[in-house]
Amino acid sequence: MRQALHHLALSTHGAGLVEITGEVTRWVAAQRIDTGLLTLFCRHTSASLLIQENADPDVQADLLAFFRRIAPEGAGYVHDAEGPDDMPAHIRAALTQTQLGIPVANGRPVLGTWQGIYLFEHRAAPHRREIVLHLIGDMAV
Amino acid sequence: MRQALHHLALSTHGAGLVEITGEVTRWVAAQRIDTGLLTLFCRHTSASLLIQENADPDVQADLLAFFRRIAPEGAGYVHDAEGPDDMPAHIRAALTQTQLGIPVANGRPVLGTWQGIYLFEHRAAPHRREIVLHLIGDMAV
Amino acid sequence: MRQALHHLALSTHGAGLVEITGEVTRWVAAQRIDTGLLTLFCRHTSASLLIQENADPDVQADLLAFFRRIAPEGAGYVHDAEGPDDMPAHIRAALTQTQLGIPVANGRPVLGTWQGIYLFEHRAAPHRREIVLHLIGDMAV
Repeated sequence: MRQALHHLALSTHGAGLVEITGEVTRWVAAQRIDTGLLTLFCRHTSASLLIQENADPDVQADLLAFFRRIAPEGAGYVHDAEGPDDMPAHIRAALTQTQLGIPVANGRPVLGTWQGIYLFEHRAAPHRREIVLHLIGDMAV
Repeated sequence: MRQALHHLALSTHGAGLVEITGEVTRWVAAQRIDTGLLTLFCRHTSASLLIQENADPDVQADLLAFFRRIAPEGAGYVHDAEGPDDMPAHIRAALTQTQLGIPVANGRPVLGTWQGIYLFEHRAAPHRREIVLHLIGDMAV
Repeated sequence: MRQALHHLALSTHGAGLVEITGEVTRWVAAQRIDTGLLTLFCRHTSASLLIQENADPDVQADLLAFFRRIAPEGAGYVHDAEGPDDMPAHIRAALTQTQLGIPVANGRPVLGTWQGIYLFEHRAAPHRREIVLHLIGDMAV
């Protein structure tokens, strides 16, 4: 049984989904671990992780609109020292995922055909974000 | 340390919770891994996973009503080429889980007394769904 | 490769976040596993887990207010035999996490600077809660 650990640094461009499927898949493929468990961990509380449809970009627009509607800016939050978009960002992060665990088979995460892995930036301004990737497994079951 | 991997195929009957605790528990019991980590991964973006109360079926009815209320059909979504229930399904999946990690002790997932594992179908029509189960561990700590 | 398993029992004092970062970090540090994967699992359906900001307590107050607003008591739930706060508790648990997976490096969970691990009590009355901790890994990558 083997392990691998990697820090993935990303730039975001304001609120929205940044697809990381390609980078994650390439890193997994390079670890010589055919079967195992991949974990992604987002080291932030105003950005998060999400597995969502990778086909129609309208899905992403509708998702963003939903989270804006359910946790809007200016809803009378007590916490506003870091800007009006900060508390909505914490709420949207709480409603999505800080971490994802994905089994790996044949050297690839077992994503479905329409699934992509996304970093979900919730702040209005561009940010540098860091995701930790961990893989544990072996060359075969 | 050992691993096991399994594809669980399920039929759903429209929007609702399908309990899979029994199938999952039986598969784990057959792997001869006493202590370890079980991961369930749902290969879809319009269905998801949920651990919820397994006692009173009214809890399930209220959960469904909540998700219908918070992400209703016909809320002016841009994405509607796959039907009016598709975009609400993506939102409801984003608010619940694509994956679950559950420690295993004495050959069983360490679920609490009232916890059941459910596939949460968000589409209106019946679907074939696939969940990947991964188990890593050993005969003892 | 090694494993460790631990049951963490906690008392809560009604609805709110109980920080467990310190207890979890100390337990991990004592396992002599430098690199690995930590999993936390909450054995309840009316309490959950959350990684959130550990700096400004106002964030917690705003989070609680958000979940009260989105899943209020007295919203016409069918399930009310266990009290008016029980069904909102199940909904709030469904919207947050029953489990968290966190990579471990240098004997510590790889939390970001502002991240704390919290048990999220959703019931109004104090409860005894149980979280299972599982760690798998090795002394080095």
